[in-house]
Amino acid sequence: MGLNKKPVTGMKDILPEEMRIREYVQNVISETYSQYGFTRIETPCVENIENLTSKQGGDNEKLIFKILKRGEKLDVANATTEEQVVDGGLRYDLTVPLVRYYSNNSANLPSPFKALQMGNVWRADRPQRGRYRQFMQCDIDILGEPSNLAEIELILATTTTLGKLGFKNFQIRINERRILKAMAAYAGFAEDQYESVFITLDKMDKIGLNGVKEELIGNGFEAASVDKYLKLFEDQDNTAEGIRKLADTLGDFLDADIREGLIEIIDSVEATKQAKFDMVFDPTLVRGMSYYTGTIFEIAMPEFGGSCGGGGRYDEMVGRFTGQNVPACGFSIGFERIVLLLVESGFKVPGESEKKAYLIEKGIGKEKLCEIIAKAQKEREEGRQVLVVRMNKNKKFQKEQLTAQGYVSFEEFFSEANIK
Amino acid sequence: MGLNKKPVTGMKDILPEEMRIREYVQNVISETYSQYGFTRIETPCVENIENLTSKQGGDNEKLIFKILKRGEKLDVANATTEEQVVDGGLRYDLTVPLVRYYSNNSANLPSPFKALQMGNVWRADRPQRGRYRQFMQCDIDILGEPSNLAEIELILATTTTLGKLGFKNFQIRINERRILKAMAAYAGFAEDQYESVFITLDKMDKIGLNGVKEELIGNGFEAASVDKYLKLFEDQDNTAEGIRKLADTLGDFLDADIREGLIEIIDSVEATKQAKFDMVFDPTLVRGMSYYTGTIFEIAMPEFGGSCGGGGRYDEMVGRFTGQNVPACGFSIGFERIVLLLVESGFKVPGESEKKAYLIEKGIGKEKLCEIIAKAQKEREEGRQVLVVRMNKNKKFQKEQLTAQGYVSFEEFFSEANIK
Repeated sequence: MGLNKKPVTGMKDILPEEMRIREYVQNVISETYSQYGFTRIETPCVENIENLTSKQGGDNEKLIFKILKRGEKLDVANATTEEQVVDGGLRYDLTVPLVRYYSNNSANLPSPFKALQMGNVWRADRPQRGRYRQFMQCDIDILGEPSNLAEIELILATTTTLGKLGFKNFQIRINERRILKAMAAYAGFAEDQYESVFITLDKMDKIGLNGVKEELIGNGFEAASVDKYLKLFEDQDNTAEGIRKLADTLGDFLDADIREGLIEIIDSVEATKQAKFDMVFDPTLVRGMSYYTGTIFEIAMPEFGGSCGGGGRYDEMVGRFTGQNVPACGFSIGFERIVLLLVESGFKVPGESEKKAYLIEKGIGKEKLCEIIAKAQKEREEGRQVLVVRMNKNKKFQKEQLTAQGYVSFEEFFSEANIK
Repeated sequence: MGLNKKPVTGMKDILPEEMRIREYVQNVISETYSQYGFTRIETPCVENIENLTSKQGGDNEKLIFKILKRGEKLDVANATTEEQVVDGGLRYDLTVPLVRYYSNNSANLPSPFKALQMGNVWRADRPQRGRYRQFMQCDIDILGEPSNLAEIELILATTTTLGKLGFKNFQIRINERRILKAMAAYAGFAEDQYESVFITLDKMDKIGLNGVKEELIGNGFEAASVDKYLKLFEDQDNTAEGIRKLADTLGDFLDADIREGLIEIIDSVEATKQAKFDMVFDPTLVRGMSYYTGTIFEIAMPEFGGSCGGGGRYDEMVGRFTGQNVPACGFSIGFERIVLLLVESGFKVPGESEKKAYLIEKGIGKEKLCEIIAKAQKEREEGRQVLVVRMNKNKKFQKEQLTAQGYVSFEEFFSEANIK
């Protein structure tokens, strides 16, 4: 028949048990962020292909699922390149669509605009355990707020959400692209070398200080600069105090405003946080996307070797659409990783209503059936969950199955013939 | 720069106000259906192209957004047909993916399986007012239940949901594919003519009895058959009694079981319904999809000229994937139309928490800022929605804007310098 039971390569069917957790996490996210004044928005999953291939998305642009032109616009036989047959693509993140959305609708949006997006994105990555080609992203962004109030609110909202989901003892690691640059300048690297230096620095947690040193030297950087640079990372103090010390060393390479702005974020969050976590200054934090212009941050979760979300300030991206820059800062929560951690820890969704099952024997009369359904309707109106099903021949097995699905009580209804 | 602010043709950005209503409707649907024992599931938005072009989807198959092959599998220069460059497509409905999902996962699913799906589908239709190329569908389906308990539960769950959303005085119009066929057989049409006859019959509400007659005659059907057929629709009684009368006329062309099964659905729903609506027997109801095998039904909403959802029984579709038929029945609620009706009626989402805004003057000290944020955090913990923003120079205008967004109270915080 040509029908294929499997989902497409790298994507997955979500079974009821995981789905309950996903729905719960989405509800907690939506409720908590709305308390911080974020409003939900949605953009189409398909974007014009030019917007997806305009160098906003870094390596993700290589992984786009592209959509074929339709109708008269499509001429496969005479086409020689991909560009000729494609006009759209599935979004690979929620940031590019957000910036397009803001550029398109800003006249009808408040300023500052606090947006919450939850939606699927697609990347044709090599399939591997726990990573799928369709996955949910969950982003909050504040557009139009130049001050660090944006960062403070984003971090508080996200960490409060994580706390409500039961996570604790995690870290928010924070850095500043302009501190990264000041450190590189102080060491004597040229501006056009920064990105290459940062790509190596980003590997610090995997290859260590010596590994970074070897790679930088191997890449042809001067030993004097490399030594001066790496000395900055030795005995690093990860508190606000550490930022002050580092700033003293950097001297004129770093504006006092940048130092104070970052310290204010750390101190304000520490003073007002509702979840159990620590703010950690991490001068090795790079984050890959080239669009970041200021603060960058990441969630480090002890249960999970790696980041469970992150974000930063990207003040120049709206300008790519409108010609006029708008300050912007965002935080993307690692929805799929959080769900995975909850599923693996055997998380039970709290506050689910009592589940009852009515088993109805076959051959029951119409009037009796109406009575039973009316009873179920009444229980449902009172907030209970009632499953009305036909009784199977193997009733014991049926009840075992229902118990496994979380049904805690049963009522049985027999046809008149069998009662007599 | 090549960046385009507009969404792709035929798709739309969803603004905060509509989004609040969409989220509310989704929550009501999810909660209500779960009280009826439905569990949410999700399938990927992308399906293998063979599954989408296997004649399950009727005309929708002409409207598929197709996805380009990637990597070595793609050779545009040497390709001459669409098939050679495509391996997937965006789903055009939720029924084909559901049946694939069930076929793939049935070993891990309960029986009967009551599924709720809410998700986007895509159709490259000609863009027109109120119809978009990406839209949300919301389907409930029961797989593995051969008796009409499935129909009764589907109709009760859907109508209770509509009632909770404030809709009343609507109708559930119901018919049976096997009654449709019995009527055609009684009139003397040959079995291979049925589909053509039904396509014309489907236009009854637009062109009337005479229009249908003319079109059938015009299509070359025998006048005697056409007359005998159309006589069945004259003075039709739309109640259960009408089904009995029609069945008497049809005699041996219609099994008594089919008649009684349909009447039982109508009577049971009428006796136990929680919303204000009527069950209406409509022998002219056809519903286009060829996969229906038994009951078919539709929501007729007085506020909306046309159907706001529908469904039916499709007992033979799982067999297309697995070789073994499984009884199945589904109801798709017209999510986009319902949202449109609510938006147009000025619907206000009930039970939203009180919205408060804190306006903070620029230049406020760090300690003061921490105090203000701590206060906001406390209010949020108590369930209120608190927006913390910088005070604009034009404070009056800022407050007007916030009031328009639903903020009902304001607190203002000034920097020390200005208090003195």
